[in-house]
Amino acid sequence: MSDNLYDVIVVGGASAGLTAALYASRQNLKTLVITKDIGGQALLTDRIENYPGVDAIGGFELISKFEEQTKAFGTQFVYDEVSSIEEQDNVCFAVKTHTRAYDTCAIILAFGKTPRDLGVPGEEKLKGKGVSYCAVCDGPLYKGKTVAIVGSGDTAIDAASLLSNLAGKVYLIHTWEKPLGDEETLQNLKNNSKVELIPYSHVVEILGDRSVNGVLIEDSKSKQRKEVRGDGVFVELGYVSKTDFLRNLVRLNGRNEIEVDKECATSHSGIFAAGDVTDVPFKQVVISAGQGAIAALSAYNYIQRLRGGSAVRADWKTRKKM
Amino acid sequence: MSDNLYDVIVVGGASAGLTAALYASRQNLKTLVITKDIGGQALLTDRIENYPGVDAIGGFELISKFEEQTKAFGTQFVYDEVSSIEEQDNVCFAVKTHTRAYDTCAIILAFGKTPRDLGVPGEEKLKGKGVSYCAVCDGPLYKGKTVAIVGSGDTAIDAASLLSNLAGKVYLIHTWEKPLGDEETLQNLKNNSKVELIPYSHVVEILGDRSVNGVLIEDSKSKQRKEVRGDGVFVELGYVSKTDFLRNLVRLNGRNEIEVDKECATSHSGIFAAGDVTDVPFKQVVISAGQGAIAALSAYNYIQRLRGGSAVRADWKTRKKM
Repeated sequence: MSDNLYDVIVVGGASAGLTAALYASRQNLKTLVITKDIGGQALLTDRIENYPGVDAIGGFELISKFEEQTKAFGTQFVYDEVSSIEEQDNVCFAVKTHTRAYDTCAIILAFGKTPRDLGVPGEEKLKGKGVSYCAVCDGPLYKGKTVAIVGSGDTAIDAASLLSNLAGKVYLIHTWEKPLGDEETLQNLKNNSKVELIPYSHVVEILGDRSVNGVLIEDSKSKQRKEVRGDGVFVELGYVSKTDFLRNLVRLNGRNEIEVDKECATSHSGIFAAGDVTDVPFKQVVISAGQGAIAALSAYNYIQRLRGGSAVRADWKTRKKM
Repeated sequence: MSDNLYDVIVVGGASAGLTAALYASRQNLKTLVITKDIGGQALLTDRIENYPGVDAIGGFELISKFEEQTKAFGTQFVYDEVSSIEEQDNVCFAVKTHTRAYDTCAIILAFGKTPRDLGVPGEEKLKGKGVSYCAVCDGPLYKGKTVAIVGSGDTAIDAASLLSNLAGKVYLIHTWEKPLGDEETLQNLKNNSKVELIPYSHVVEILGDRSVNGVLIEDSKSKQRKEVRGDGVFVELGYVSKTDFLRNLVRLNGRNEIEVDKECATSHSGIFAAGDVTDVPFKQVVISAGQGAIAALSAYNYIQRLRGGSAVRADWKTRKKM
């Protein structure tokens, strides 16, 4: 029997994927996590104070705890990117990276989202030269400097909060009257003299030759443009789902999110999904974790039915004594 | 303006309710929790090792942590039982206990479930005299004694696990070939010489005059009956939803669970639900907590829409500056 055969393969290694793997491993399922890296969006928050059961904690520390528990229950990890999932006759699915294939009859998709581009002149050229999509990763490069954050939602508010502790001056350029998100964090920003909120505005160009030296913004009411000088731009427009490779396998919604039912089952039998990659309405660590647990228990039930039923595949029945 | 008016009223004080209250309070909503007691089913587990982010911990300690965080964010608590919820013109709902009424436009129902009766002769008479529905509450009374656990699911397995550390002898009387639940815990039970699993059996009578001295069981194949002598019976048949008082307000499923959508909204506008009282498929602390967070954020959005829209109620618009 192939070493490549797993009971469950979890694609993704953040709060949803790690919780799914923890639950699957604890149910004695041979579980593999395939992920480029550990952490996901939780890493983007320097202080999580609304994860129940845990006092205020850094995102990195919280996720490290998840990882530690998951490994303690015996989950295996491969640090790679899944490029395709193919159906096959004998063991249901081959989950392929660019270098290898792994077999399984149950998949949990939990690979979250990736940051959305701003899509204006200057952005592509200055990526990594002052244009960043990750405040927690790149924030420390801007100690005492001036930064502009572009965005009107939770990720922008969180980035502004984080950068207000590092940068000398923070502009938060947002589309409407006020950014939408955590009220307490927003209030703290308004009370912080280092932070300036620029409402009703959007960025039309990122300025700079070899590195960022500012942004050109337009007021959406007056249509007047002005330059905001600064050393860095944090594009915090939220995230997109890179689910195109799944389009022929599972049903996606209009935002390319994987549609799941209450049991975290997708439209394809044997494929489950959890966390930010799904159409769950809010993006929070505890919500992703809850979904991860649901997906794993649903996958467990699915496997039990596969093995118990008459349609069970031969190599599933013999591989492991139940 | 009445002191009795809240932005959100959460009914229930366990993992779902406390997380909902934590999230609601953190969004600056004036939040009241009405609950008979704190804890719920998590209290029934002496060791939770699959709550991500927290090392193995007692259910009581974990829930105390939830409670502490929730109170730190300013949630108010009333220790009472909700007897009815009534619609009213001016502030949407009156949430009534036997002694008082509290007003709100957003309700989160999260009061979990209550244990199911066995329904056999002797049970009613011997309740509290050897018949128990809570291993973690009453287990310590049976140190070194002989107990029978009746049930075929997770709650029975957990109760057997707990009691195997306290009692001298534990019988687990279950309906099918094996109880259905956590495989690792089940394996530990099978390896424990103090524990005896009695398959294909059900209890037909609880024996004893002033206190339990055993149970009469029937083998479902041979139909033969026999007595199992013991000092206590733990009825661990799972839980039922006491949702009858909501029947005219929100849609229930066949198991009397409150039907919720992905946003934890019920069929009634302004009423949300989370945790074991809903039709979520699995009953786990992290799943309830995830749902609690969803319900609170949905309630927050609902309130924002109420206040912002033209149909907003006068006392809502003026009560609190947004």
